[in-house]
Amino acid sequence: MIYLDHNSTTPIVPEVLEAMIPFMTEHQANAASAHPGGVRAREAVDHARGQVADLIGGTAEEILFTSSGTESNNLAIHGITASSADRSHLVTTSVEHAAILKPCRRLAEGDYDLDVIPVDEVGRLDMSQAQQRITDRTLLVSVMHANNEVGTIQPVAEVARLAHAHGAFMHCDAAQSVGKLAVNVDALEVDLLSVAGHKLYAPKGVGALFVRKGTPLAPFMLGANHEGGFRPGTQNVPGIVGMGAACAIAKSKLEKSVAQMASLRDELHARLAQGVPGLRRFGDPDLSLPNTLNVGFPDAHGRTLLQAAERVAASTGAACHSHSDVPSTVLTAMGVPTEHQLGMVRLSLGRHTTHAHIKEAAELLIIAWGQQVNG
Amino acid sequence: MIYLDHNSTTPIVPEVLEAMIPFMTEHQANAASAHPGGVRAREAVDHARGQVADLIGGTAEEILFTSSGTESNNLAIHGITASSADRSHLVTTSVEHAAILKPCRRLAEGDYDLDVIPVDEVGRLDMSQAQQRITDRTLLVSVMHANNEVGTIQPVAEVARLAHAHGAFMHCDAAQSVGKLAVNVDALEVDLLSVAGHKLYAPKGVGALFVRKGTPLAPFMLGANHEGGFRPGTQNVPGIVGMGAACAIAKSKLEKSVAQMASLRDELHARLAQGVPGLRRFGDPDLSLPNTLNVGFPDAHGRTLLQAAERVAASTGAACHSHSDVPSTVLTAMGVPTEHQLGMVRLSLGRHTTHAHIKEAAELLIIAWGQQVNG
Repeated sequence: MIYLDHNSTTPIVPEVLEAMIPFMTEHQANAASAHPGGVRAREAVDHARGQVADLIGGTAEEILFTSSGTESNNLAIHGITASSADRSHLVTTSVEHAAILKPCRRLAEGDYDLDVIPVDEVGRLDMSQAQQRITDRTLLVSVMHANNEVGTIQPVAEVARLAHAHGAFMHCDAAQSVGKLAVNVDALEVDLLSVAGHKLYAPKGVGALFVRKGTPLAPFMLGANHEGGFRPGTQNVPGIVGMGAACAIAKSKLEKSVAQMASLRDELHARLAQGVPGLRRFGDPDLSLPNTLNVGFPDAHGRTLLQAAERVAASTGAACHSHSDVPSTVLTAMGVPTEHQLGMVRLSLGRHTTHAHIKEAAELLIIAWGQQVNG
Repeated sequence: MIYLDHNSTTPIVPEVLEAMIPFMTEHQANAASAHPGGVRAREAVDHARGQVADLIGGTAEEILFTSSGTESNNLAIHGITASSADRSHLVTTSVEHAAILKPCRRLAEGDYDLDVIPVDEVGRLDMSQAQQRITDRTLLVSVMHANNEVGTIQPVAEVARLAHAHGAFMHCDAAQSVGKLAVNVDALEVDLLSVAGHKLYAPKGVGALFVRKGTPLAPFMLGANHEGGFRPGTQNVPGIVGMGAACAIAKSKLEKSVAQMASLRDELHARLAQGVPGLRRFGDPDLSLPNTLNVGFPDAHGRTLLQAAERVAASTGAACHSHSDVPSTVLTAMGVPTEHQLGMVRLSLGRHTTHAHIKEAAELLIIAWGQQVNG
């Protein structure tokens, strides 16, 4: 298989698994236990907290571990709204992940007002709309760092400055960007930032939420006093250790992998554009994740095309919607007509993607497209 | 170390890790992806669903995977209350885990009424109180199967019959009993039942919730449509596979391990009672988890005693409260005076606990107690 589906999930790399194994064999105590085994587990968890902070900025004490990016997003939104009674206005964008849009919409069914900032044809939010919609009534602004489907990078710091000027909190869903781009909570000027382990070569089942010191936060789940009282449930020690190790590796390899992925991504686009006249490209060609290429094959059906190019593992839209032909909310928000969405294929590269992978994937996709178009 | 802290967490057994490894190496796709890797991951998740159902009853379709017992409890309570508008009365017991009591109390700060059934001196709920408190107004009754601190088993089926006679739903937190006792959702007559992976030799970071077909449920976290739309977030495939494998092993070893743990637990109690005049025992001596021995060392401080008996890994109360000397809510609910709680030590055996462990642990604890009492 040629795996070009890294925006769906990344593999755990061997060094990460190696870091996890001792905590699935000899060191398996509960990190909340007082005995020496518990102390060792707790130290490992806190070491991982520091490794996450080393990658994204902030301090170890500002990192909470959760079970996923989805949980981090839910905790961020609930955490702010449940602890701040004086304001009830939320602002987000039309291209956020469902783990942001759905919690916001749920609150809007109750006492909250929700404003959704539209995006332009490359998926970038409209700053003049942001300026109009963020006001002194606004409690929380949530803007993703990079889009999962098309890779477009949002002007998070600019929006954060607007939010802060109005006394609002700023959250950023960075599930797709951490490990693929330089992400720094101070450069982005955010109060809260969500990370998903399995998008950066850490295991599935672990996520993190950066919460800037002084930001009010109510726990989302309720239970015992783990994670400083903000996230109950026995800590997933091996998963957390894996996340820390993955962050340390991502940091050391970031610069080189960004350049390499961007170059291979551009080559993949060039090859496909040459072999497929009329190929569309969705997303911002200039300011985008270095690993993501979202293209529309003309007169074709993306899913059928991928089934024909069976050695290429990729997606039509987000993995979580891979079983339906419903139009993509992201592409629809960008104004892409439904008929242009049908031929959409998302190719997302990883740190281990090679030139040979790209060459073969392009050939297979071009052949599959030719067969589909010629009947 | 002599590990007698299995109610805090159990180690992943080698067979479980072996089942997980392929999903952390060669088979790492997102279980929501349409490509062959995704199909394989999805099949593994569904196989594990069947293994959980094989252990606790019900069908694979009635099992949802979560990140923990805590999340399963939060999902059960929120899931019923958010989907049932016509009733607003909740009933639980005074010895539940914080992951039940806190969500119930939070709801009681809003539009819900909460009744908490008291327990007797061995920690067993008062059935006459249950009969009085469960009425035609009651929406949900939540009673744990076995207590985490003292092991006392509750009359879940009896309470469930009461709940159902009044048209209420019945939830059971079985985090401490699954894998240690025969647990069957039909015998317990419950509509919802929570399971924690790391209490039954599966990894930390995975849990399950049984939801009987036809039971209304609203998702707790919001996001994409994983787990039938009831639990968003990319599925933790290795964790889920490990949970399935652990359930299959638990089923095959249950009968033998129950008898063995009960016999060793009774021997441990006999040895301690002989060496420590005035030793108290907390919990029901007759109807209790086979692995749990909660004792009070007279004139002693439990935590200091465990520090002195440093080869024995055990807890004073629940792991999640191991860092404070706050009186146990469970023992307080049982009417144990605070001064008797100070010397409390919870010794919880596992499938791999041996006679030699028990003999040595008893000797070390008796010596540590003697040193503490004699100054």
